[in-house]
Amino acid sequence: MVERVVRLIQGGVTSAQGFVASGVHCGIKPEKKDLALVYSRAPASAAGVFTTNKVKAPPVLFNMERIRSGRGQAVVLSSGNANSCTGEQGMRDAREMAELTAHYLGIADDLVYVCSTGIIGRPLPMDAIRQGIPEVVRLLSPDGTTAAEAIMTTDTVPKAAAVQVPIGAQVVTVGGMTKGAGMIHPQMATTLTVLTTDAAVAPPVLAAALRRAADQSFNRITVDGDRSTNDTILLLANGEAGVPEITGPGDALEAFQSALTTAAVTLAKMLARDGEGATKFVEIVVRGAQNDADAHRAGQAVAISPLVKTAIYGGSPNWGRILAAVGASGAEVAADRVAVWMGPVPVAERGVAAEDPESAEEAARYLAGEDVQITVDLGLGKGEATVWTCDLTEAYVRENAGLLS
Amino acid sequence: MVERVVRLIQGGVTSAQGFVASGVHCGIKPEKKDLALVYSRAPASAAGVFTTNKVKAPPVLFNMERIRSGRGQAVVLSSGNANSCTGEQGMRDAREMAELTAHYLGIADDLVYVCSTGIIGRPLPMDAIRQGIPEVVRLLSPDGTTAAEAIMTTDTVPKAAAVQVPIGAQVVTVGGMTKGAGMIHPQMATTLTVLTTDAAVAPPVLAAALRRAADQSFNRITVDGDRSTNDTILLLANGEAGVPEITGPGDALEAFQSALTTAAVTLAKMLARDGEGATKFVEIVVRGAQNDADAHRAGQAVAISPLVKTAIYGGSPNWGRILAAVGASGAEVAADRVAVWMGPVPVAERGVAAEDPESAEEAARYLAGEDVQITVDLGLGKGEATVWTCDLTEAYVRENAGLLS
Repeated sequence: MVERVVRLIQGGVTSAQGFVASGVHCGIKPEKKDLALVYSRAPASAAGVFTTNKVKAPPVLFNMERIRSGRGQAVVLSSGNANSCTGEQGMRDAREMAELTAHYLGIADDLVYVCSTGIIGRPLPMDAIRQGIPEVVRLLSPDGTTAAEAIMTTDTVPKAAAVQVPIGAQVVTVGGMTKGAGMIHPQMATTLTVLTTDAAVAPPVLAAALRRAADQSFNRITVDGDRSTNDTILLLANGEAGVPEITGPGDALEAFQSALTTAAVTLAKMLARDGEGATKFVEIVVRGAQNDADAHRAGQAVAISPLVKTAIYGGSPNWGRILAAVGASGAEVAADRVAVWMGPVPVAERGVAAEDPESAEEAARYLAGEDVQITVDLGLGKGEATVWTCDLTEAYVRENAGLLS
Repeated sequence: MVERVVRLIQGGVTSAQGFVASGVHCGIKPEKKDLALVYSRAPASAAGVFTTNKVKAPPVLFNMERIRSGRGQAVVLSSGNANSCTGEQGMRDAREMAELTAHYLGIADDLVYVCSTGIIGRPLPMDAIRQGIPEVVRLLSPDGTTAAEAIMTTDTVPKAAAVQVPIGAQVVTVGGMTKGAGMIHPQMATTLTVLTTDAAVAPPVLAAALRRAADQSFNRITVDGDRSTNDTILLLANGEAGVPEITGPGDALEAFQSALTTAAVTLAKMLARDGEGATKFVEIVVRGAQNDADAHRAGQAVAISPLVKTAIYGGSPNWGRILAAVGASGAEVAADRVAVWMGPVPVAERGVAAEDPESAEEAARYLAGEDVQITVDLGLGKGEATVWTCDLTEAYVRENAGLLS
């Protein structure tokens, strides 16, 4: 694949031409914004990636059915209540959210997608949502900030990103917003993500591009190994940049794929960095694996290990826990070939402690930082993978034990 | 299988006839006991189950080789240092521990097994161990207490159990000791377990019986999903009860198997109860699965979920997290058939909240106790499984982040 000049810009879900968004407080949460809308002036191609959890929330089932058309124009999102494990009533509520949104936008009902995130098992407070929808439609604007705020749950910061890439004589923009921050694991996180682009892309090509981008981004992060019932990525491509429609392989698709993957990776890293209770962002690089799948497996096992994550929280260069995690990952591992670095510091070589007696101290100093990179070389082959996670802290426990409320 | 009268008795690794044990402080740890020995007056049949982690500590590799003889007479165990990720030096040290122990016991060297538990990646302090071995041999006695103490790492209590079962006109005893308490997950925990029995059992029959017992006990517990490099269960059967040797299927084997499994389950539950930082013992019962393997998978997923475990810690009857965990477990799940109980309280039925509006409050009251049972009925078939775990607390994080030291 040609290396493309993908440029990160300030922005988010409304950076691509023809998109507007908004976020309001309608009353699902006590005070904070809890209803968001993303809208394309023109009908768009649409693609989606959804949770693989067998317990799927009604809005997920609703979107999975609707996405088969490959078309879309708006996404309405509520936070504070996941509309999950809510049965037939939940499906009726998701449908009503779409219908009301379409009604106030004056568009066809089947172009609206619905996402919800928050507590599982309680019916959506539909009275609040019915009052909120006309308001969130009225406030649509080119500023995507309030929408990114309105989808937050335990996130501490709103998350948005945008990138640009030249295609022919034009510039195409891909932007998006996402939310975390617990129950995050590949296939997928408790994430809701809306991506928008002004490229024109045929629906099947768009779906494949989104799947590829998700594999390199949202499927590479883990916070706590839990997979939610609501995870959704939706992508709308409205063609407003004026570039010819991308209908198959070629330079244009490569450029678009680069931009889409970059935007997705940027958002996914924001999720890991803002994992519940996190004090550190952790990148795990595995190389020398027998193949890429093994590298991913090993990286995942390190990223999910509570013992590794607590050691990183405590700033302790406990590489033995990393070897133990790798050894139990299912990946091919020869204990006497494994090397581990913490940042630039080699801490283990050929499966035993690094010879330099100062390496442990140096590694501890490195771990004191907020950005931590762990590199594991399995010494077996050319397989590589990178995954992202965060540390495991007392604050994670307090937050999820409900000891804050 | 005939229901056997297996009776739990006070005791442990020296309850079976002909076994003695001891534990001393030799200097691996700053103060506490750190070297243990279990010894059978007569050479015994021996069987072992070892970690499936591909990174195996030298003593594990040493025992795996040695156990092929099916014979054994002593197990020497050190705590405070796992002798793991220590390469060739680690193997030499394990061998020397066995040789010294055999020397001071005056038995054949190849009848001694070696276990170590503690920090990974540092060479064993062999000077301390060399001084400790004659002492631990000298102090051998029919009281197993000090041995159970000397294998503790982060355990808060020593763990021992013993059971008796009649075989013919005799009574056979199975006893044992074990230690946890983090890095605990099936296949297996960071556990060291020594089981002893005065039954006479042919080595291949003993190996199969131990495998079966482990599957029902140590492979049913999880604390944090991490699998250690050192997990070992060793079983010595010395025949001192005077019962004819068990060489194959029949009443005697069934009785012995019941006793062995009961002893193993009792010890395994002690491990879960004393998981690092645990405040609650949690039993997850899954029924109505398509088959037993699916039930185990679903139970495991619930038991390992940080979100479920923190909710239990916080006393919050968040059944949605249980459904999410089950749905992501890989087991066959139909969301609209799942029912969940917390103790006797139904909290979810057919995949949605239980109708009784007071059930959440009742469940919260139930969760305030120290012994929690969660039952999940998948509503699909006759598969059943039970797994044991503990809650996830701030103390777990503090302990493993090294914030206590």
